[in-house]
Amino acid sequence: MKISDRRNFLKNAFIGTAGLAAFPVVLSANELDMASPSPRININSLKNSNVILFQGDSITDAGRNREAKDPHNQAALGGGYAFLAAADLLNTFPAKNLQIYNKGISGNKVFQLAERWQNDCLDLRPAVLSILIGVNDYWHKHNGNYDGTVAIYEKDFRALLKRTKEALPDTKIVICEPFAVLGCKAVDGTWFPEFDQYRVAARKLAGEFNTIFIPYHDIFVKASRVAPPTYWTADGVHPSVAGAKLMSEAWMKYVFGK
Amino acid sequence: MKISDRRNFLKNAFIGTAGLAAFPVVLSANELDMASPSPRININSLKNSNVILFQGDSITDAGRNREAKDPHNQAALGGGYAFLAAADLLNTFPAKNLQIYNKGISGNKVFQLAERWQNDCLDLRPAVLSILIGVNDYWHKHNGNYDGTVAIYEKDFRALLKRTKEALPDTKIVICEPFAVLGCKAVDGTWFPEFDQYRVAARKLAGEFNTIFIPYHDIFVKASRVAPPTYWTADGVHPSVAGAKLMSEAWMKYVFGK
Repeated sequence: MKISDRRNFLKNAFIGTAGLAAFPVVLSANELDMASPSPRININSLKNSNVILFQGDSITDAGRNREAKDPHNQAALGGGYAFLAAADLLNTFPAKNLQIYNKGISGNKVFQLAERWQNDCLDLRPAVLSILIGVNDYWHKHNGNYDGTVAIYEKDFRALLKRTKEALPDTKIVICEPFAVLGCKAVDGTWFPEFDQYRVAARKLAGEFNTIFIPYHDIFVKASRVAPPTYWTADGVHPSVAGAKLMSEAWMKYVFGK
Repeated sequence: MKISDRRNFLKNAFIGTAGLAAFPVVLSANELDMASPSPRININSLKNSNVILFQGDSITDAGRNREAKDPHNQAALGGGYAFLAAADLLNTFPAKNLQIYNKGISGNKVFQLAERWQNDCLDLRPAVLSILIGVNDYWHKHNGNYDGTVAIYEKDFRALLKRTKEALPDTKIVICEPFAVLGCKAVDGTWFPEFDQYRVAARKLAGEFNTIFIPYHDIFVKASRVAPPTYWTADGVHPSVAGAKLMSEAWMKYVFGK
């Protein structure tokens, strides 16, 4: 079996070589296609120097330097899936000179995105806006530090998306499914089935607003069949380096079909 | 042309789809094959939990946290090509549970690697050792802060490789070509042809010790035909995010044929 056949699970799922029979696959092509809305974004529809914006909580933030202004600066992009996706985009499409921003802030819930949306999203006029939000909306409720509900999450997220569509009608939106991986430090059985309601709400909104949807929860669950859950995320919420790469590969696949 | 045809220049160079005619390719398959020693490393030859070590100067260091001990921690891996290659390796070969270390230190010349080689290389017993060293051996001489010569670089580097082979006969070694990109802030015509002698010395040592050799200088020069040199490296020495990804993709291709 050639190394090149093993490129990564997501690509393997699409390439589907005979060699893969010898190697576990996280997602089958069918599973991906069923979960993935179409059409994806055609890179040719993006103009030179278009902005791509990653928004969310600590998973997106990933230790970024909030003082760094250069969108092509690693410190500004953090050390997680947004940086890994940015590196892939900048290397793959150099002629586009994409301007890529990470504005994730650790601990954020959806209402906190709304509070900073004018500065941290609308003013940047992104051509592509990727949002990963929701785990704190549940987690902080679960640990008794927040009295929000899934109904509030859905209502606030819907209002944020409506506001975005009105201000930026041409912006292509990507909704990333909130995820929580059982068998890791911070996530136990008490999270379910209630946490699943937040996943359902995010998927429902992707349908309502006709956005791309990335089923990250399913992706982590399936990756955990190949290596232990803690290989992909130590606490069940924050991805490891391997988990961040799993996320960036899925992002490229679901958003650009790459 | 499908986005997937454009994956990245290095892969495109190997895939060679018809679609590529519409898209510039940095390296042709022939150029890569001619520059690339064989055989590459077969991932199946690595044992579970084997160590992969990236050694070098600031290009490898890339702002890593030297206090971080967890080899699967982004802060410990820095924000450059070593982190990007680690993320790719950990996601692509999860069953191997590879232990990946970055021990690059900003400003280092080859004699400074030798001073810390026992702790920062030999004691880690890497299965794969990747070394990128040499730009400071020239740069610090060029700016008058070092009186070393290319002969000293070659002599010190040969002694380091001999010492490594004696202590770790089974370790697979990768020598990365030092590079300097004209048309960027820190690199002008006064660097050449003298800097090229350091590139020649590194390539000569790769031949003497039968190591893998990655021709990074050529890779950056060819990438600069597709986007301006400063897109890949602001100062001609330190890669941008796009340049770091160019390096990690080349590393995976030359080391694992991936």
